[in-house]
Amino acid sequence: METVSTNTAFGGVQGVYKHASKETGTQMTFSVFVPPHAEGAKLPVVWYLSGLTCTHANVTEKGEFRRACAELGLIFVAPDTSPRGEGVPDDAEGAYDFGLGAGFYVDATEEPFAKNYRMWSYVTEELPALVAAQFPADMARQSILGHSMGGHGALTIGLTYPDRYKAVSAFAPIVAPGIVPWGEKALPLYLGNDKAAWRRHDAVALIEDGARVDALLVDQGTADNFLEGQLKPKLLEQACKAAGIDLTLRMQEGYDHSYYFISSFMEDHLRWHAKRLG
Amino acid sequence: METVSTNTAFGGVQGVYKHASKETGTQMTFSVFVPPHAEGAKLPVVWYLSGLTCTHANVTEKGEFRRACAELGLIFVAPDTSPRGEGVPDDAEGAYDFGLGAGFYVDATEEPFAKNYRMWSYVTEELPALVAAQFPADMARQSILGHSMGGHGALTIGLTYPDRYKAVSAFAPIVAPGIVPWGEKALPLYLGNDKAAWRRHDAVALIEDGARVDALLVDQGTADNFLEGQLKPKLLEQACKAAGIDLTLRMQEGYDHSYYFISSFMEDHLRWHAKRLG
Repeated sequence: METVSTNTAFGGVQGVYKHASKETGTQMTFSVFVPPHAEGAKLPVVWYLSGLTCTHANVTEKGEFRRACAELGLIFVAPDTSPRGEGVPDDAEGAYDFGLGAGFYVDATEEPFAKNYRMWSYVTEELPALVAAQFPADMARQSILGHSMGGHGALTIGLTYPDRYKAVSAFAPIVAPGIVPWGEKALPLYLGNDKAAWRRHDAVALIEDGARVDALLVDQGTADNFLEGQLKPKLLEQACKAAGIDLTLRMQEGYDHSYYFISSFMEDHLRWHAKRLG
Repeated sequence: METVSTNTAFGGVQGVYKHASKETGTQMTFSVFVPPHAEGAKLPVVWYLSGLTCTHANVTEKGEFRRACAELGLIFVAPDTSPRGEGVPDDAEGAYDFGLGAGFYVDATEEPFAKNYRMWSYVTEELPALVAAQFPADMARQSILGHSMGGHGALTIGLTYPDRYKAVSAFAPIVAPGIVPWGEKALPLYLGNDKAAWRRHDAVALIEDGARVDALLVDQGTADNFLEGQLKPKLLEQACKAAGIDLTLRMQEGYDHSYYFISSFMEDHLRWHAKRLG
């Protein structure tokens, strides 16, 4: 692991790091905020998965999470959203919603993406092992949240590993990628045409198929351009109701899809996580 | 005035606006956060002046001021740092520390800068009139803060108009531009070689020459690369001590010159302002 930068912030250290990933076959960059803490202490780890087009940098610069993480004693990790670099295949037309910046947190099985696009294993296995080795992290206390495509990632990962992630929440998540345009484009290219494979990467389908968590927190802006066409939080609400999952879905009046929305409610999410992380 | 963008944030509205400035002869862009407030209420106005190379956008995205402004009921205005656009003269070699992005909050008297570089009048007269007309602003309650070159601007403006600005503070300000490289380059190009003109744009010289405010708050990182060569807060400390100005100078261990530093202490500054704004 190589340190790209460190900056003192809110009494802790905001770092950016890179490493050679075995999963993606590329250099991967990620950011970690370590709050002020007693020497030798091990701290809970909050994973934040970003949305389409983002890198680690968007939330690191605009997410306004450090104040609450410093107060609550939380490590905050922000991975990139896809492999990047020469030789990594991209969308055929360079579109923003597939390929670079748009890994959808799956392990691709289709060519030419299968070699590099292994974001599921990267985020759930390889990067946690690195974080455990390099930072004062208590890996028995992890939680996960994300935005948009990263909200999809957080929900699907949290639903798949409910014992590992003690809290799961999302800002404006894609809750049912299997039936909205973003997912209908990306999932066949990464996973092929067998829709059974898609269902393991679709929060609503996972719940319908029996996945369970105790509780979910979702914030969704009412002025979000993607609300009707891509996000469809009501589908998550219906699935949670049928499954007996305690979903708190907050429709936030006038908020859009931007970091102005995310930063406004970041502290609420971190407090919700901290309570469940003990 | 034209609206470039508005985003709901922390219950208020973060806007970006532009207008044709008579002072600079250019289009000028600025941002305004209006916190949630009762209809008809008039709110105090905090002016934030940015540093070298910045536009309104840096603090708007990274400053983490909205949460505290929403709580405290403060309007937060961030102007640009220079005129911009075709025909606006720049540094002869395109350097970062003079010309575009580096107006130093003076009204230039030297050619070819005198026509456009009128940031003092723009920030103290023209933009306040526009803000008063367009936003729910109580112009009897204004305060000012800034970072680096903008800390210089905040201190010199606050010291010049102590009745108008009820609170004055700075992050890592240039306190004595007349005797450090940034100012020794910029001041003669904007103001000519008469050092009497420079002293009106030098916080330490202004205090030596009799300018007074009740109190100042300054945060300065100890790991700031510019601390020794350009910023020299001890000169401000000496001047304030001699003048009987109640300066709170906080040397912040390990902090650098970045927005990671500014955002860490922004809330402290805003609370300090709010107390003085009533």
